[in-house]
Amino acid sequence: MSDTSTNMRLKLPIACFILEIILIILFGTLVQYDHETDAKAWHNESHHDYENDFYYRYPSFQDVHVMIFIGFGFLMTFLQRYGFSSVGFNFLIAAFSLQWATLMQGFFHGMHGGKIHIGVESMINADFCTGSVLISFGAVLGKTSPMQLLIMAMFEVTLFAVNEFILLSLLGTRDAGGSMTIHTFGAYFGLMVTRILYRPNLDKSKHRNSSVYHSDLFAMIGTIYLWMFWPSFNSAITAHGDDQHRTAMNTYYSLAACTLATYGLSALTAHDGKLDMVHIQNAALAGGVAVGTAGEMMLTPFGSMIVGFLAGIISVLGFKFFSPILEEKLKIQDTCGVHNLHGMPGILGAIVGAVTAAFATKDIYGEGLADVFPDVASGSIDASKQGGIQAISLAVTLGIALLGGLIVGWCHISSVDLM
Amino acid sequence: MSDTSTNMRLKLPIACFILEIILIILFGTLVQYDHETDAKAWHNESHHDYENDFYYRYPSFQDVHVMIFIGFGFLMTFLQRYGFSSVGFNFLIAAFSLQWATLMQGFFHGMHGGKIHIGVESMINADFCTGSVLISFGAVLGKTSPMQLLIMAMFEVTLFAVNEFILLSLLGTRDAGGSMTIHTFGAYFGLMVTRILYRPNLDKSKHRNSSVYHSDLFAMIGTIYLWMFWPSFNSAITAHGDDQHRTAMNTYYSLAACTLATYGLSALTAHDGKLDMVHIQNAALAGGVAVGTAGEMMLTPFGSMIVGFLAGIISVLGFKFFSPILEEKLKIQDTCGVHNLHGMPGILGAIVGAVTAAFATKDIYGEGLADVFPDVASGSIDASKQGGIQAISLAVTLGIALLGGLIVGWCHISSVDLM
Amino acid sequence: MSDTSTNMRLKLPIACFILEIILIILFGTLVQYDHETDAKAWHNESHHDYENDFYYRYPSFQDVHVMIFIGFGFLMTFLQRYGFSSVGFNFLIAAFSLQWATLMQGFFHGMHGGKIHIGVESMINADFCTGSVLISFGAVLGKTSPMQLLIMAMFEVTLFAVNEFILLSLLGTRDAGGSMTIHTFGAYFGLMVTRILYRPNLDKSKHRNSSVYHSDLFAMIGTIYLWMFWPSFNSAITAHGDDQHRTAMNTYYSLAACTLATYGLSALTAHDGKLDMVHIQNAALAGGVAVGTAGEMMLTPFGSMIVGFLAGIISVLGFKFFSPILEEKLKIQDTCGVHNLHGMPGILGAIVGAVTAAFATKDIYGEGLADVFPDVASGSIDASKQGGIQAISLAVTLGIALLGGLIVGWCHISSVDLM
Repeated sequence: MSDTSTNMRLKLPIACFILEIILIILFGTLVQYDHETDAKAWHNESHHDYENDFYYRYPSFQDVHVMIFIGFGFLMTFLQRYGFSSVGFNFLIAAFSLQWATLMQGFFHGMHGGKIHIGVESMINADFCTGSVLISFGAVLGKTSPMQLLIMAMFEVTLFAVNEFILLSLLGTRDAGGSMTIHTFGAYFGLMVTRILYRPNLDKSKHRNSSVYHSDLFAMIGTIYLWMFWPSFNSAITAHGDDQHRTAMNTYYSLAACTLATYGLSALTAHDGKLDMVHIQNAALAGGVAVGTAGEMMLTPFGSMIVGFLAGIISVLGFKFFSPILEEKLKIQDTCGVHNLHGMPGILGAIVGAVTAAFATKDIYGEGLADVFPDVASGSIDASKQGGIQAISLAVTLGIALLGGLIVGWCHISSVDLM
Repeated sequence: MSDTSTNMRLKLPIACFILEIILIILFGTLVQYDHETDAKAWHNESHHDYENDFYYRYPSFQDVHVMIFIGFGFLMTFLQRYGFSSVGFNFLIAAFSLQWATLMQGFFHGMHGGKIHIGVESMINADFCTGSVLISFGAVLGKTSPMQLLIMAMFEVTLFAVNEFILLSLLGTRDAGGSMTIHTFGAYFGLMVTRILYRPNLDKSKHRNSSVYHSDLFAMIGTIYLWMFWPSFNSAITAHGDDQHRTAMNTYYSLAACTLATYGLSALTAHDGKLDMVHIQNAALAGGVAVGTAGEMMLTPFGSMIVGFLAGIISVLGFKFFSPILEEKLKIQDTCGVHNLHGMPGILGAIVGAVTAAFATKDIYGEGLADVFPDVASGSIDASKQGGIQAISLAVTLGIALLGGLIVGWCHISSVDLM
Repeated sequence: MSDTSTNMRLKLPIACFILEIILIILFGTLVQYDHETDAKAWHNESHHDYENDFYYRYPSFQDVHVMIFIGFGFLMTFLQRYGFSSVGFNFLIAAFSLQWATLMQGFFHGMHGGKIHIGVESMINADFCTGSVLISFGAVLGKTSPMQLLIMAMFEVTLFAVNEFILLSLLGTRDAGGSMTIHTFGAYFGLMVTRILYRPNLDKSKHRNSSVYHSDLFAMIGTIYLWMFWPSFNSAITAHGDDQHRTAMNTYYSLAACTLATYGLSALTAHDGKLDMVHIQNAALAGGVAVGTAGEMMLTPFGSMIVGFLAGIISVLGFKFFSPILEEKLKIQDTCGVHNLHGMPGILGAIVGAVTAAFATKDIYGEGLADVFPDVASGSIDASKQGGIQAISLAVTLGIALLGGLIVGWCHISSVDLM
């Protein structure tokens, strides 16, 4: 029996069954419906917290859910060599991560009487965390078995929750669309893992990465889904009212500007006068990543379009010039180019967020300041301090992602004979 | 002119035109906008029934609509041999069933002054009924002409409405997500029809059922759509508030657990160390079917995950061991394996619903008991009686489905020379 | 360096960059968040206009967004020869049109203190305008470079806004789903451009227009998306309450009836006893176009089904008999058959709207008359006058579309050496 065969026949089933049984036991012990979801609790309350209500949050949840599963699932099919793996393994990893993230995020976000209370907002957060794991998956695609991916996901979800807790709860960082917590974290974690798992001979199969007609169409399904639902993604957990309006609108215009920049630069840098479909499929989305932090702020459509334009430029340049350098000099084989779609645009988004926060004033935001920057509105810090916190948060995220990826990568290496 | 050609050139057009003209006449005679949809009625009311309101129900409707048309349409493309038929005929059958179901369900759900009043909720119910017809279609795929499918749909929709009326209106059964009314009914109806239409020589083309790379990707579009929107499907007609929250959440965790069970068992039972894509495409969805009845109850995420886990196991075992037995011993050629995705998980869902209902107490549900079990809350029956009603409902559903399938199958056989 | 190569290497990048920079400057100068989207303005208001609120409009926006990008993007993939162009160029043109439409529609819809105020409703309107551009794209597919398409889009968006302003603001026309403003306008504009760009030798590559299995499945993704979301499309900007209910429902039943008519007539007119997939992919959607104007009126499901049935018949006959005549006699090469899906059904929709409006009475609409026909309800005109206005609007739309297409087409011809 070959290694692959052994892995599939015995290790994957054991991993799936043991992990799911552990999850079920932990859910049985620790998890409860929140007051919006429990039959008794709901009816005992005279007033419902409509900020968290099903009717407002649920359509956002469903949009995010579609974006994660169809968007990330099909985006990676542009590599025909990995087409089916990307969809099939994505699905497994995502189903696991949703459950594990519910526990980890619930644990860090605070338990009530020893119980994790879950509802529609925790489902959105679990989907966000899953998105981050799928980004990392894009960096290591083709190097890891499904079982290694499950273990990577388990560690990554845990570190994601730690980083999210440090940023959102300890530091008071604003990052509704996850430029830092989701994109930067997922990208650099995955890049470090793929660095550790460097395989010199992976180069030989490089030509099989080439995409073909139908694979490109499948990938475009992923691209267009991500593009369409990004406004919902960035606004899913913002405050209701103007905040959610603004975030969706900023994202919409950032993506539109990014798309024109992508087509322009892709055509300009083309060898043969043809658009590179990998650019279109990926870089046109960088505008969504880059307004993940500042989207809920008073960035204006004008500001959003500038950010989107820059994100498209950076992303195409990354695919064209930076990825080959990463591979040749730093031995980082970034299979799907997540550094260009999530890494650099994520950092750009964090910087834009820090700058926009530093210039927030009561004059611009009025009473709305309390929604976007509660610490600034309450007077406990000033806007420039909030900007500083945003910048520190980027450093923290990069640190945890790189260190976490290093450790997980080494664990994989050292356990390769065992697994 | 060949038979197929005759069928297409003359019979299908005649069937389509006559059926549509009958539908139009019946709609003209019998159907009215309900008070939420009629310009005059809406403005004559001082208070609107927000439980039925467009803003709350419409996003659910649209999610269900997507699930039925994209989900069921593309799921069946995994059989390349039938790929196009599945999408093309599905579309025709679904368009017919939506209209016919509006009439049949309206008739049984009660007419007002000789008129059927329709609105967003009747559209959801028509979509549900259409889902059941498409499940049956999965069992007979490859054996029937489009015209036979139309006639099958006409009878099935009628019987669906009868069964639904007996369960929901006469017996007071709870089945919001349709484990019984939709899945069990659709599966066993279709299985009986395919049994009657048994063709020994269908075996010879069996190898053409094999799936290939792109077909698998198309089918995964169907699978992931069903998977993503199942929480909306199960919660679409539950009471608003905690009920809808809970149903969506229970379905979400059931599906996640089911997916891990499916990958694990599929790998364990694989011959060649490769995951069987048919398992992934189908069995990973069984968790949604299996919480169709109990999803709105206080099943808890813990309970939902156990149910989902079991559903995945049953479904993979069904594909691996039970389907070949059905075909060889019972001569039931279940083209798409609906017995494994809808039949057995539907029965599991009915049983889980009956048990969960039997243990419902005021202590657990509080005032919410009136939403989930109105008859128990009013004191007219006790919880164990409700459990008994649920169990009887499963038997009634199986009886009507099998008997109905038998009759429709025989009609097809005996009219085969005519049609 | 070949012409194509030059075009891609230099002209497309320059066009993309210059256009995007102009857009960014104009947005910076002219565009502001509306009062629903601005942090300060929202909190300064004690009462929010829930008719325009994010929670009500946003799900409709997202549905329209999906319909435009996935629906129109993938529908055109049925032509394998242009498959990738259709998706890739669609995406570029759409991203540009969204931004340009925001400015043009904002300019004509009225500026406030020299500023265009944008919010979720302007995003829906920009998507609508983009839909019209993509319809025209379907007529000229295969004849124009991406850069020519960008220039065509720039002029078409401008004329779209002019026509929309004349109809909705000056004449008081009702056209919520855009039978005239979107479909008729887009189709006849595109048909005139393709007439001017007539290429005799395009015929030679005609056989490469033939569709194949996987291309048909991709196109069916487009078809089914358009079909599913058309109720949301037609109802996206109608008044809330009964109007939105009614529009969605009328569209739903019109499409269902249209689908049966399409299958029936396609089979009847088939040469070889096989359904023509191009009919299914296109004509089954004509019912949505044909109730674009009357959908919000008291058309009843009965009336909607008759309209849908007729639309399907007209559309199939168009593909079968009218398109070849257009090409041979009038030298109009309608690549995707937009005349059959958008042109003739759009005119049908305008006529149905005019007739339905002319028969509107207070007795039928009650107080709801003010939502649908404000000018009739206020007594400033009577219903037959409203019908007349609707008919005039069709003539205006056709005039602007044909004249606009003529001018844009001639500009392309005369600049062909420059570009």
